[in-house]
Amino acid sequence: MGRNLALNAADEGIAVAGYDLGQPAVDAILAEASGEQRVFATTSLDDFLTALPTPRAILVMVPSGPAVDAVITSLKPHLTGGDLLIDGGNSHYTDTARRQAELEAEGLHFMGMGVSGGEEGARHGPSLMPGGPKDAYERVRPTLEAIAAKVDGDPCVTHLGPGGSGHYVKMVHNGIEYGLMQLLAEAYDVLHRGVGLDDDALAARFSTWNDGPLQSFLVEISAAILRQKDDLPAPEAPENAAPAEGRLIDRILDKAKQKGTGKWTSQDALDLGVPIPTIDAAVAARYVSAQKATRERIADTLADPDLALDPGLEDRLEDALLAAFLVTYAQGFSMLAEASREYEWDLVPNDVARIWRGGCIIRAAMLEPFRSAFEADPDLPTLLLAPEVSDQLSATREALGEVVAAAARAGIPVPALSASLAYLDSMRSARVSANMIQAQRDFFGAHTYERTDREGTFHTEWDETVR
Amino acid sequence: MGRNLALNAADEGIAVAGYDLGQPAVDAILAEASGEQRVFATTSLDDFLTALPTPRAILVMVPSGPAVDAVITSLKPHLTGGDLLIDGGNSHYTDTARRQAELEAEGLHFMGMGVSGGEEGARHGPSLMPGGPKDAYERVRPTLEAIAAKVDGDPCVTHLGPGGSGHYVKMVHNGIEYGLMQLLAEAYDVLHRGVGLDDDALAARFSTWNDGPLQSFLVEISAAILRQKDDLPAPEAPENAAPAEGRLIDRILDKAKQKGTGKWTSQDALDLGVPIPTIDAAVAARYVSAQKATRERIADTLADPDLALDPGLEDRLEDALLAAFLVTYAQGFSMLAEASREYEWDLVPNDVARIWRGGCIIRAAMLEPFRSAFEADPDLPTLLLAPEVSDQLSATREALGEVVAAAARAGIPVPALSASLAYLDSMRSARVSANMIQAQRDFFGAHTYERTDREGTFHTEWDETVR
Repeated sequence: MGRNLALNAADEGIAVAGYDLGQPAVDAILAEASGEQRVFATTSLDDFLTALPTPRAILVMVPSGPAVDAVITSLKPHLTGGDLLIDGGNSHYTDTARRQAELEAEGLHFMGMGVSGGEEGARHGPSLMPGGPKDAYERVRPTLEAIAAKVDGDPCVTHLGPGGSGHYVKMVHNGIEYGLMQLLAEAYDVLHRGVGLDDDALAARFSTWNDGPLQSFLVEISAAILRQKDDLPAPEAPENAAPAEGRLIDRILDKAKQKGTGKWTSQDALDLGVPIPTIDAAVAARYVSAQKATRERIADTLADPDLALDPGLEDRLEDALLAAFLVTYAQGFSMLAEASREYEWDLVPNDVARIWRGGCIIRAAMLEPFRSAFEADPDLPTLLLAPEVSDQLSATREALGEVVAAAARAGIPVPALSASLAYLDSMRSARVSANMIQAQRDFFGAHTYERTDREGTFHTEWDETVR
Repeated sequence: MGRNLALNAADEGIAVAGYDLGQPAVDAILAEASGEQRVFATTSLDDFLTALPTPRAILVMVPSGPAVDAVITSLKPHLTGGDLLIDGGNSHYTDTARRQAELEAEGLHFMGMGVSGGEEGARHGPSLMPGGPKDAYERVRPTLEAIAAKVDGDPCVTHLGPGGSGHYVKMVHNGIEYGLMQLLAEAYDVLHRGVGLDDDALAARFSTWNDGPLQSFLVEISAAILRQKDDLPAPEAPENAAPAEGRLIDRILDKAKQKGTGKWTSQDALDLGVPIPTIDAAVAARYVSAQKATRERIADTLADPDLALDPGLEDRLEDALLAAFLVTYAQGFSMLAEASREYEWDLVPNDVARIWRGGCIIRAAMLEPFRSAFEADPDLPTLLLAPEVSDQLSATREALGEVVAAAARAGIPVPALSASLAYLDSMRSARVSANMIQAQRDFFGAHTYERTDREGTFHTEWDETVR
């Protein structure tokens, strides 16, 4: 990632210096850099620091956690007042705030910056989500704007807010990413195990979706994944045999890994009291996938239902996915709004939508209407109330209900699709069933309840015959 | 709670001393105690401590958080070596472990003990979940066994494990409680808003369930709640008017409160990597309920679907709830098993099931088969594989699918029912759709994947035309 970001900057005519503990990384960037690019790389910390004009701006690209602190500790004695460190990894936002406070106390600047777009994005234009001191941002702004992805010439970067707000926005970005990925995996499962589409039809369906309102990076790569032929021979084939027939997707193990940002998103939403059930369901689904040995035992024991689904269902999936995508983004933006209030960050939601339009993993055509909706009404309490979103939801809710219903009957698990549906149906219910929960709490714990017809809190002496 | 536990002990012939900062609490317990009971109560700390034989055993019943530390700080200077403090509130298990270590270092003993059953349970027999030093437990064991609920003469208390394990088991108990309460609220919503049952039919249906495999405290009180007539006159009625017509449930505000143990359960499960999606959905549903003003705005905007459900559905709800209840308990017990491994507690699952059979909020007829299943096979990887549970799930899964399907079409939100269904359908899928997620992760982040047909990790150079 660091190498690709450096080469990206060099493409823009910016002189860059790279530092890595290992010679192979240094050799690699020098080999990739063209003659016209001003790229310097070294394993010597002294040479690296000397190469940088002061006050220095250093982007740190190491795994989140102790490695970031280790790098800071090793660099700090050699830095001078006004130098700026930027952590471009997926650090937890509370670590970023702590590091910033510690370094500011010593006259050094620190920014946490989310970087999304993978290796490819880093090389050719990522979405950048920096947070920290505004004046420090202004110093590196020209460089960040140069390397960021562009949408209609507008760079996908902006100063988001103080403290750990940049890493926070990136965390929520990843939470949304978990949600969208799980939704697409469920759509694949419905079409593959349920409707029984063949390989070509599966890939074609996802490609078609990418030409419509679902247009997005994740839908696009899902289509490409479904087209990908296996690149290895069958295990029993002789060495150097041709790749096996069939698609790679069928031979990838169904145990999903993760690096923690989805989990953090769910945990922080729980602290904030913001419901993000689609993202929660996506994180839980990865945990379920990891329990493969147990799943295999249960599959042997519990009778299989009929997985077959009506082929007509495939025409409803696009609308169902659209509704669920909208709901997932709405949950993420609601979380950002509450975090901004709670942590006093003054996040600007249309800025977030704007820099997510390009470069990042969750970039999608629908980000532009989100941006304009928040621009028109920055206090919009939820994206579900944005006029265009509301119209789309009205048009697609029924399809989401049909897909969830069909999958429920057939026994295809759709945890994120059904969590999205339940969220949508709850949020448009002026009255939900929580009156029962409040009654139960008052019954067994005397926790009191409020009433619909008058102010105050009330307690009832419930049926004493119940013990 | 403290008063009721003291009176409960006094009923059993045990001499108790109570201490409270306020005279009214002292007066209250003395007024309630009968002449034969050996009950002493005071607002004087000196008198309280003098009244107790040494080494003392003191049960602290204050709200979790700083109040517990404040009580410890105020008591500590007056305690002598070997004295035992028991925190009977809902403290976070990490706080309990910390306090225990701090007090042990000073020669004092500390136990964290979950107490479930509400006011009524405390007075007549709660379920007690103590954790901490085993020898300290043995000292108070006769008292705890005397005051605990009994099931066939067997007291609902046992030493669960070291450290914060007692409070942890109580936290998971409460997480399961959140799940079951939400499932019952959804069943109520399906029958009320969906099927359109009248008040008497609603109450009768819940009562019937309590006579079958769903027999449990929460089903029983839900039936009683649905029978409860309003106890206040209409707001516009003259003073001293008769209570308004109709049921109380219809006038209770649909905003659910909470005190944090459900949230903690979800957060800790995320750290452990254990999926508990029904509990997650229940916590999120309470958050959704709190957003009433936003829900009302959305309800005005988004077209209402047809909420009407086929009356035949009500006959399927009992089986659907049974499947979902089983799944919810299974998630909770899986979490306890993983916590026991991770935190090295040696929890005995059949002991947990045994002490949950009586006294506590989640007591239910199905706890006894859980107990015997874990007794027969302590290493059972999940309750879903217990023979009796597996048979019940085979018999009820279809009903759960039908209820979720009908609610999905009708627009009745059933987040916990559908999360339970998705969990069940995922856990009995030998192969889930996480291969798509692994492919996506490798596509955009080069995170590699495993294969089904050979060992190792693999990376593919995916379609380069996708940018």
